[in-house]
Amino acid sequence: MTIKEPSKKIVIVGGVALGAGAAAKARRMDENAEIIMIERGPYVSFANCGLPYYLGDEITDRDALLLNTPESLKSRFNIDVRVLEEAVELDRAKKLLTVRKVDSGEQYQLPYDKLVLAMGAKPIIPPLPGIGLSGVFSLRTVPDVDQIKAWVSSQNAKRAVVIGAGFIGLETVENLASIGVEVTLVEKAPQVLPPFDPEMTALALRELDKMGAEVILGDGIASFEGVNRATTVTLESGRKLEADMFLLGIGVRPENGLAKQAGLELGTAGALQVNEYLQTSDPDIYSGGDMAEIIHLVDGQRRWIPLAGPANKQGRVIGVNVCGGQEKFLGAQGTSIVRVGKATLATTGFAEKTARALGLNFFTSYNTAGHHAGYYPGAKDMTIKLMVENPSGRLLGAEVAGREGVDKRVDVLATAIAAHMTVSDIAALDLAYAPPFSAAKDPVIMAAMAAENVQHGVIDVVHSIDDLPAEDVNVLDVRRDDEVIEGMLPGAINIPLDELRDRVGELDASKHWIVYCRSGQRSYFATQLLKRVGFPHVYNLSGGYIVQEMKQEVLSRQQQDEAGHSKEHVAAR
Amino acid sequence: MTIKEPSKKIVIVGGVALGAGAAAKARRMDENAEIIMIERGPYVSFANCGLPYYLGDEITDRDALLLNTPESLKSRFNIDVRVLEEAVELDRAKKLLTVRKVDSGEQYQLPYDKLVLAMGAKPIIPPLPGIGLSGVFSLRTVPDVDQIKAWVSSQNAKRAVVIGAGFIGLETVENLASIGVEVTLVEKAPQVLPPFDPEMTALALRELDKMGAEVILGDGIASFEGVNRATTVTLESGRKLEADMFLLGIGVRPENGLAKQAGLELGTAGALQVNEYLQTSDPDIYSGGDMAEIIHLVDGQRRWIPLAGPANKQGRVIGVNVCGGQEKFLGAQGTSIVRVGKATLATTGFAEKTARALGLNFFTSYNTAGHHAGYYPGAKDMTIKLMVENPSGRLLGAEVAGREGVDKRVDVLATAIAAHMTVSDIAALDLAYAPPFSAAKDPVIMAAMAAENVQHGVIDVVHSIDDLPAEDVNVLDVRRDDEVIEGMLPGAINIPLDELRDRVGELDASKHWIVYCRSGQRSYFATQLLKRVGFPHVYNLSGGYIVQEMKQEVLSRQQQDEAGHSKEHVAAR
Repeated sequence: MTIKEPSKKIVIVGGVALGAGAAAKARRMDENAEIIMIERGPYVSFANCGLPYYLGDEITDRDALLLNTPESLKSRFNIDVRVLEEAVELDRAKKLLTVRKVDSGEQYQLPYDKLVLAMGAKPIIPPLPGIGLSGVFSLRTVPDVDQIKAWVSSQNAKRAVVIGAGFIGLETVENLASIGVEVTLVEKAPQVLPPFDPEMTALALRELDKMGAEVILGDGIASFEGVNRATTVTLESGRKLEADMFLLGIGVRPENGLAKQAGLELGTAGALQVNEYLQTSDPDIYSGGDMAEIIHLVDGQRRWIPLAGPANKQGRVIGVNVCGGQEKFLGAQGTSIVRVGKATLATTGFAEKTARALGLNFFTSYNTAGHHAGYYPGAKDMTIKLMVENPSGRLLGAEVAGREGVDKRVDVLATAIAAHMTVSDIAALDLAYAPPFSAAKDPVIMAAMAAENVQHGVIDVVHSIDDLPAEDVNVLDVRRDDEVIEGMLPGAINIPLDELRDRVGELDASKHWIVYCRSGQRSYFATQLLKRVGFPHVYNLSGGYIVQEMKQEVLSRQQQDEAGHSKEHVAAR
Repeated sequence: MTIKEPSKKIVIVGGVALGAGAAAKARRMDENAEIIMIERGPYVSFANCGLPYYLGDEITDRDALLLNTPESLKSRFNIDVRVLEEAVELDRAKKLLTVRKVDSGEQYQLPYDKLVLAMGAKPIIPPLPGIGLSGVFSLRTVPDVDQIKAWVSSQNAKRAVVIGAGFIGLETVENLASIGVEVTLVEKAPQVLPPFDPEMTALALRELDKMGAEVILGDGIASFEGVNRATTVTLESGRKLEADMFLLGIGVRPENGLAKQAGLELGTAGALQVNEYLQTSDPDIYSGGDMAEIIHLVDGQRRWIPLAGPANKQGRVIGVNVCGGQEKFLGAQGTSIVRVGKATLATTGFAEKTARALGLNFFTSYNTAGHHAGYYPGAKDMTIKLMVENPSGRLLGAEVAGREGVDKRVDVLATAIAAHMTVSDIAALDLAYAPPFSAAKDPVIMAAMAAENVQHGVIDVVHSIDDLPAEDVNVLDVRRDDEVIEGMLPGAINIPLDELRDRVGELDASKHWIVYCRSGQRSYFATQLLKRVGFPHVYNLSGGYIVQEMKQEVLSRQQQDEAGHSKEHVAAR
């Protein structure tokens, strides 16, 4: 057969998730298109989410990180991959890209019919004194991790400071700890894992403690010091930390220089505006991934959500559309997950703080349950927090913290959110049950039922014993004797649930009663009992003692750090 | 306060999942109702799904199986539990139940305002010669498992025959094997796990092999023989199997004697008809669980689906409604899961054979992918089969077979089915991704994308190289050299995908080409290449070599058993 002249010239700038996906899909759509991929770094299509695990030797095969090579993209998809080349100028009128070879500095001009901007995001490197010293790293690319690994071994690094407690920061702490490096984690926000509501991060703090990692919250970095190489970081509080290496995981920002220069419309946080076909303000230029806005599926607003899952799906959509298709990318909802030691934390949709900042009318509900049937050995507690729209009952967001099976529950809840399900819809789901995998009522269903009870007014809840005015409010603990010895909430009296019916006469029915147990389930039973026997004002403490403990742990960590700062300030004066 | 006179009298017959749930919920709704629970056996609210695991010492704490006791139901919920009592007659006109005490035979009459029939199902015990001999057991209750455990130890049982290869049958085989009992499994159907399509059971067969269990398919039981105790079972084929114990797991049927006697309307398979409020044909009598029909959520038809998950949810609905509420139970979709050795198999919605028997217009699509990112160590293959409605693309059913993470994917797919999602909706889901948990494109998303390609006509698929007439059809294998040495499909020629573009001239474009690889993904790339360079008739083999192997394994097992039967017949003549 005869190979025809190229039907069109598709140029893709950036060769990782979005770019590689778009290139491969475009080839499947059009065998005759000329597809050129420009990548500034030496590698394309690498697994950037795997880098922390390679650092920690959990992934030992470096080649496994390179999902595709220029050679494999050539042989499999006939993509002309040009690594170590950088797009430096974009002339939209002439549809001409100026490309610079990184090694030689030589430039050439590359015309395009369709252009894909897939440069992603770059780590935030604040212009602080000493930030350019050797020993200060960020972790975003394969060369980054190569450098860090080489540094650890050449310098025999024993102490590290990780700056930023987001997903990559925490994964880095864990993986450094696992290769015997002592780590201090510094985070400017008053909590780790800022996408989560603070109390849900308690499990992560516990695991960081177990790893021996010191955690400093509410403090930023001011400068690095050292001769030839960084040996100290000074925090905004004045506190100084010595270490053999410093890893910046403060966050990323869209790689928008070229887009700005070319006059493309930018939106939130400097990310590119794109429509549902992933076209920028120039219809021949497409973008997505970490450098473009996304429609948030929960409220339809445009936001910047730089995550790998959407980027991969957007690559496929762009690949179709640059070849004349009309595929749509409808949005994402910020689903994400992180393992921290033996704990797993996951979130989808809006956190409570996000929903609150948006002024939405919603309530929250907590539930803790075993990840599989309690009678089958090894069940681990999992706490699910739901953000539920008033009065519709629609799920707006969820956070899950536990040990096993967290990934399953967040994916079910993510699917439910995508389907605009209410908590009643979720409570009715027919999920798979056998003892090794779940309970007859899965934790997701238990959490949805608890929320449904709130939505339908079956139960009134509070989130703290301070939620009601102190006068006239009493607190009832319905846990067993053996649970109570571990601690009670201030001012509570204890009557175990199984004795409550007989002992209800001991309680003053005219008062307001906040009832709690370990997880919120027995106290729910108790509130129903009290209401039915004539207590007019009864409230369940949502999530029970477990969630109060989580809140308290995070709070005391914050207070401890604040006290630490004050001390430092005093010392510095 | 004063406790009022009972507001109403609620009688519940049967104290396990449905009955116990209904009782507890009714008490939360109405503190003053008199709630009486009649249970024929000695225990209420036990974990019947846990019994096989107790048999195999995976659950060692017998008390853990007893989720509630008569005492705990009394103290916590003020339920009057009457164990070892049986409902023997129901007079609906007088709203009067006749109850017989199992031990004394003494009878009394019990009036009710609302009656809940929650007797569940009973094991099928066919009236075969010798079935009453000792050493023949079924496994449905705590006394059953007590007897079996006592028998294993008192008789030092070393060999067992398990009859019936459903969920409980397979769990029993696994648990007997794990305590050192040699097991033969006999199943009348030509496959294990009859709810699944045959090819999806290949992983279960492999695991049964690894356990050393012999599997006999397509053969039923005819009689048991032995002096005082059963020592031999004779199969319908004439084959005889000797063993120390025989476990019947043939299936169950609704415990409908009382309902029949009282003239309540029965439906499918002898299960009670109930409306969405779970009322039987008598509005003061409620039922659910293993003894009642359920609306199947996929097509809205009434079916009998005896599973624990729906029963537990129905208990809650009945508890509300017997107290005057208007809660609805909308249905279920047969979601179920089983662990067999290191494999897990799960299903939700319709199997292919079910959809076919119903005459639905649908197609099937297979995909195999690792349960987490391939670059992160330990990824295990998982095969997902989707049943997709034509032309809408709505998901009608799914089956998942793999090792890790099968439970997650079936629950996501179950949620998608409940939401009436199309495969395009599923492909767009924003699921949680970090290397230990998933891939940037989760297996569910990969499976949905593959199906979407079929639905949109991007790709034509076949399910066997025999699906097209042999003349003019060629088969192309695009796997690598190192894969091909493990075997190829008959008549195939091999050109690895990465060489195909250069070697496409070796192929006759006028012929029909069926293309395959290991999982169906590279062959999809190849079909797109061939189509774009002018091959008009190209088909992808859905699911690739993996699924063909699964089909072949099940088929050869069936043929082996048929050959075995013929031999037995010859020997018996």
